[in-house]
Amino acid sequence: MNGERWRGRGAGTPGWRGRSAITLPVMSPAASTPAYRRLSVEERRAQLLDAALSLFAHRAPEDVSLDDVAEAAGVSRPLVYRYFPGGKQQLYEAALRSAAEELRHCFDEPHEGPLLPRLARALDRYLRFVDSHDAGFTALLQGGSVVETSRTTAIVDGVRRAAAEHILSHLDVTDPGPRLRMTVRVWITAVEAASLIWLDEDKQPPAEELRDWLVEQFVAVLNVTAARDPQTAALVRALASADG
Amino acid sequence: MNGERWRGRGAGTPGWRGRSAITLPVMSPAASTPAYRRLSVEERRAQLLDAALSLFAHRAPEDVSLDDVAEAAGVSRPLVYRYFPGGKQQLYEAALRSAAEELRHCFDEPHEGPLLPRLARALDRYLRFVDSHDAGFTALLQGGSVVETSRTTAIVDGVRRAAAEHILSHLDVTDPGPRLRMTVRVWITAVEAASLIWLDEDKQPPAEELRDWLVEQFVAVLNVTAARDPQTAALVRALASADG
Repeated sequence: MNGERWRGRGAGTPGWRGRSAITLPVMSPAASTPAYRRLSVEERRAQLLDAALSLFAHRAPEDVSLDDVAEAAGVSRPLVYRYFPGGKQQLYEAALRSAAEELRHCFDEPHEGPLLPRLARALDRYLRFVDSHDAGFTALLQGGSVVETSRTTAIVDGVRRAAAEHILSHLDVTDPGPRLRMTVRVWITAVEAASLIWLDEDKQPPAEELRDWLVEQFVAVLNVTAARDPQTAALVRALASADG
Repeated sequence: MNGERWRGRGAGTPGWRGRSAITLPVMSPAASTPAYRRLSVEERRAQLLDAALSLFAHRAPEDVSLDDVAEAAGVSRPLVYRYFPGGKQQLYEAALRSAAEELRHCFDEPHEGPLLPRLARALDRYLRFVDSHDAGFTALLQGGSVVETSRTTAIVDGVRRAAAEHILSHLDVTDPGPRLRMTVRVWITAVEAASLIWLDEDKQPPAEELRDWLVEQFVAVLNVTAARDPQTAALVRALASADG
């Protein structure tokens, strides 16, 4: 199972947020220990978080130690504890919050133009996030992880709720009935499940096909709901006339 | 949140497997403590498991203590520990294994007659299970529970795998390609998600409508996949000619 997680990936792939170039310690060519520049508290915290994010992205939390984080950041273990006195759990939750924020940005999409291409663009960003956080994404959503708590579950649920709100706002729905709400929420879970399977299947089929399939699924399940829900039926008609 | 879990349910509802009548201690009318009949080791284990199942069905694991289990079974706390020396975690996992087995029985459906009614009957049984294990089902699948481990995740995944195998065997598919496999697995996750939302929405819409909606979703997502997968396309044609 753990072997699966690692299929074809090295641990040294770039960090989650592309900020590594700024916050990693400056190495002097001949030195074996990094030469630090003085960092502010915020900079130091961001540096440690970046190192943690990069490790948690491609390994299960149980396979990341605070020593690994200290080493990746080029600092001492006590320093990591000084910033995150709650240890790995606190560091993981901080990293997760940061990743959740990044994920929310995937949903930022202007309210203009045909609806389905908007959905496709958001899915493209989402799948790029999944692609670049493979093992961390799997460990987080698969459950049973040692660092999973009601708090981490709440962070993930917050992202799901944000996704549902974005979709409904793009559909111009302010007061969704239970059938439409369930349709959207279930489709979001389907996207998650498909992403996990996609990672498990060596990222096949290609992301573009997966994205198109998910968009088409969205239309298909809306159509199913439309047969017994007038609100969804009106939406499907609007979608067909605007995008068709 | 915890309040939500309890909406309209008492803790004293009947046990998971309908065996309570056999294994509960015999009460003599006037006595305040139960009069035991001598139980074999297997009977005693089953009795304790039944009591635990009944409690775990309608409460989150963190809200069930070993004292509760002992009280529900009418035995002493040390006796519970003698049978389950690993304490609540061991008891929970045993209860979960037993519930998983029950869930697998929901998928037992003769390989005869039109396909979609077979799926509908299996879903009816599944939704009855969900209905009668509401809080336990939610706590199990929502994640972040104190008793959740990689072992409990594996038990739940085993049920999902069994469901996928049943569906593919009913479809007479022995060698499913990745697109068909993903479609079936994602639909199974959609069923789970819909069940959780259904519990959260006070079991609305009625179970029959939810079941029909899920069957129609199954057909709809197969149709989406059929557009780019010949194996699924052949299946959809066979479904339409047999059931239409």
